[in-house]
Amino acid sequence: MMKLSSKIQKCGFSPMRKFQSYQVAAEARGLKIYHLNIGQPDIETPKVFFDTIREFRQPVLSYAPSPGVPAYLEAVKRYYSELNVPLQQGNILATTGGSEALEIALACILDDGDEILIPEPFYPNYNTFVRITGGSIRPISTSPEEGYRYADRARIEPLINEHTRAILMTNPGNPTGVVLSPEEVRLMAEIAREHDLFLIGDEVYREFVYGGEKLTTLLELEDMAEYVVVIDSVSKRFSACGARIGALISRNQELMANAMKICQGRLCAATLDQVGATALYGVDSSYFAAVQEEYKKRRDTCMEGLSKIPGVMCECPKGAFYIMAKLPVDDTDRFQAWLLEEFDNHGETVMFAPGEGFYATPGKGRDEIRIAYALQQRDLERAMAVLASGIQAYTARAGKS
Amino acid sequence: MMKLSSKIQKCGFSPMRKFQSYQVAAEARGLKIYHLNIGQPDIETPKVFFDTIREFRQPVLSYAPSPGVPAYLEAVKRYYSELNVPLQQGNILATTGGSEALEIALACILDDGDEILIPEPFYPNYNTFVRITGGSIRPISTSPEEGYRYADRARIEPLINEHTRAILMTNPGNPTGVVLSPEEVRLMAEIAREHDLFLIGDEVYREFVYGGEKLTTLLELEDMAEYVVVIDSVSKRFSACGARIGALISRNQELMANAMKICQGRLCAATLDQVGATALYGVDSSYFAAVQEEYKKRRDTCMEGLSKIPGVMCECPKGAFYIMAKLPVDDTDRFQAWLLEEFDNHGETVMFAPGEGFYATPGKGRDEIRIAYALQQRDLERAMAVLASGIQAYTARAGKS
Repeated sequence: MMKLSSKIQKCGFSPMRKFQSYQVAAEARGLKIYHLNIGQPDIETPKVFFDTIREFRQPVLSYAPSPGVPAYLEAVKRYYSELNVPLQQGNILATTGGSEALEIALACILDDGDEILIPEPFYPNYNTFVRITGGSIRPISTSPEEGYRYADRARIEPLINEHTRAILMTNPGNPTGVVLSPEEVRLMAEIAREHDLFLIGDEVYREFVYGGEKLTTLLELEDMAEYVVVIDSVSKRFSACGARIGALISRNQELMANAMKICQGRLCAATLDQVGATALYGVDSSYFAAVQEEYKKRRDTCMEGLSKIPGVMCECPKGAFYIMAKLPVDDTDRFQAWLLEEFDNHGETVMFAPGEGFYATPGKGRDEIRIAYALQQRDLERAMAVLASGIQAYTARAGKS
Repeated sequence: MMKLSSKIQKCGFSPMRKFQSYQVAAEARGLKIYHLNIGQPDIETPKVFFDTIREFRQPVLSYAPSPGVPAYLEAVKRYYSELNVPLQQGNILATTGGSEALEIALACILDDGDEILIPEPFYPNYNTFVRITGGSIRPISTSPEEGYRYADRARIEPLINEHTRAILMTNPGNPTGVVLSPEEVRLMAEIAREHDLFLIGDEVYREFVYGGEKLTTLLELEDMAEYVVVIDSVSKRFSACGARIGALISRNQELMANAMKICQGRLCAATLDQVGATALYGVDSSYFAAVQEEYKKRRDTCMEGLSKIPGVMCECPKGAFYIMAKLPVDDTDRFQAWLLEEFDNHGETVMFAPGEGFYATPGKGRDEIRIAYALQQRDLERAMAVLASGIQAYTARAGKS
C-alpha cells in the first residue's frame, strides 16, 4: 500500500482544536461554553477594510504580482518607517498570513536533519511548519516559576550544534505574553550572530504590549541585516484574521531572492485581501491605543480572576493576549475533558488550550493551560468564576478518588 | 555564513516571468507587447462574486474553519454530484488556490529522495512544489511530433522504481492542451494501481475542453478511491485567479486526515474569498458554454495564424487555453530576448513562454514555445501576425550571420 511521507507523519493536530468533538457534544446538551482556547479577537475589523473591498471595480479578479500588490508593500514599508525602521520594497514579500511567511522562511532555511531553537512553550503550529521541512525543534526550556523568560546565554548556547540553523522567537510571546527587553533582544541577536544563525522574529502581536514602551523589533538592529527575518501579519494588528494577509520581511537579499522562488511558484496572495489590507494600514494610530487599552483591561480582569483561585500560578503577561497559567490539577487535558463532559456551573463551562501541546519536551506543560483573553470583559469575568468553580470541584473530586 | 536549504537552492524562478525586465525596458521604449506568456484570462469574473462579498455583513473578519467554510465545501460537493461524482464533505479541503492543494498533497506524499512521474512538458511551478519536499520529478517524455501524448504503458513503466510514489498529470494539459480519452485515463489508473502509486490529477482546466465530450475526471474511477487525488480551483473555471480559492479532493481518508494537519497549521484559506467562491458555484451552466465557445474561437484564431507560418509545428489542442508549438528557430529564449530588444512590427511585439522551462530533461523544448490564448480575438489575430513577421525576420537574420 502507498505510504505517506515521514514528515507529515511526524506532524500532529492542533491542540487548540483537540476538544472540538467534546465541544460539539457539550453544546448539543445545551451547555454554554466560554472560549478561552482560541485567539480569535472579537474586536471589529476596521470598516475601511470592507469599504475598500466594496469599492473594488475591476471586472476581472486577476492574479496579484507574486511579491505582492505594490500599494500593500508600500503600506507595510510606510508602517515600518514610522517605527524608525527603513525598508526597501525588496525587503518585503506579501504572504498568505503570517503562517505562509513562516512556512516560506523555514523552507528556505531548514533541510532534513537541521535544527531550530525555539523557547518553549511555543505556538504549536510551529511544529507543523518545522516538521514539514524535515527539520526539528530543539526547545529552549523555560519555567512558569521564572515567568517563561529565555534570553539567557548559558541556557541557549549548550543547545547549539552543527545542525542548528536558526532561532525562532515570538515576541510578544504566544502563549506566554513575554515581551523581551531591548537588552534581551540584543543578547538574542549576539548569540545568533556569533553562531551564524538566522534569527526569526514572529512579531505579529507587536501592538499588543502593555508596559507603555514600544516593542523592540528585530528590524531595528542595523548590524543584524543578514541574520534577521521578521514574520508579520494584519490578522491580530487589525483584527482581520480571515484576510490571511501577512508579510515576510528581511534585508538578507539571498534569502529574499530564494523566498521569491516560492512566491512565484504559488503565484500570489489573494488580490482583494491585499487591497483591503492596504487600506487597514491607513487607520489612525488612535485605533491601536483604544485596542491596547481594551486588551489591557481584559488581561487585568483575567489576572484578577486567576489570582483568586488557590494553587494557580501565573506571571502577569506583558504582551499579546494570552496567559499561560499553572493549575493545581494533575493533567489539564483530562481536566478539559471533565469540564466538557461532567461539569457545569449554572449550565456553563470553559474551554482553554491545555499546556502540553505548547511544549516540545515530553511531559512538560501537563499542569499548565493557555488562556486567550479575546472575549468581552463581562464574559471573561464570568469565565474566570466558572474556571475557579471547575478547579475547586475537580480537585475536591480527585482528592476523594 | 548561514547557508540556505539545499531544497530551495534546487528551485528556480518562473520561466513565465523570466523576461519581465526585458519587458519593462521594451515598454519604456514605447513598444506595445501582446502577452501570450501569461495564462491570466480576460473573461470577466461573474458579478455574483463581487456582489456576495459586498453583502458580507459580519463586523469581524474572523478565521474560517481550517477545512473550509462549510457552504463552500457543500458547493464543491454539489458541483461534483452534477458530474456524477458523489463526494462526502470529508473528501474536500478548501485551499489557497490549486497551488496550495498541490503543495499539501506533495508534502503528504513525498520524502527526500522520492520521485514523482510527470509527463513533460509540464507546468513549471510543479518544479518548486516537488523540490521543496526534497523529492524530484522523473519526466515521462513526449514529443511535439506525437502531439505530446503520454498514456503509454511501455513508456511509463520503465520509469517506475522503488523511489516512485506518485504520478501527476494535468488534464486538460498545461502547456500542451492534451485531453486524455476515457481509455487513456483508465490506463493511467491501472498503472498507478499496479505499482501502488498515488495518481494526482490537476484538473483545474476541466471546463476548457473543445471536443464536445466532457472530461473524464479521475474521481469517476470508483475502484481508485485510495489512489486518486484531484487538484481543483475556481481560478480558471470562473476567471477568479486572484481569489486564490481551490480544493484538495480525495477519498483516501488517511491522506485527507494527514492533509488536515497542514490545514490546521496554516489556520485557513481566506474567509471572504471562500464566501465569494461559494457564490461562483451558483452560476448557471450557460456561463461555461459561453466561455468555452469564446476560448474555442480564440484557439482556432491562433491555430489559423500559426498554420500560416512556415516551419511551425503544432497539434490543435483539445483543452485548456494553451498551445505548445515548435518554431523554426534555434533557441526560443534567445528569440524572445531578440523580439523584445531588437524587433518591432509597427511598434508592436509579442511575448510567449519559452519552452525549455516546461521540461525536466536538459536541452529539451529549446525550439518550442507556449502560447496562452487568453486575449481578445482581434489581439490574438494581430499577435499571430506579429509573431509571423518576427519569425521571418529572425530566421532571415540568422541565415545571414
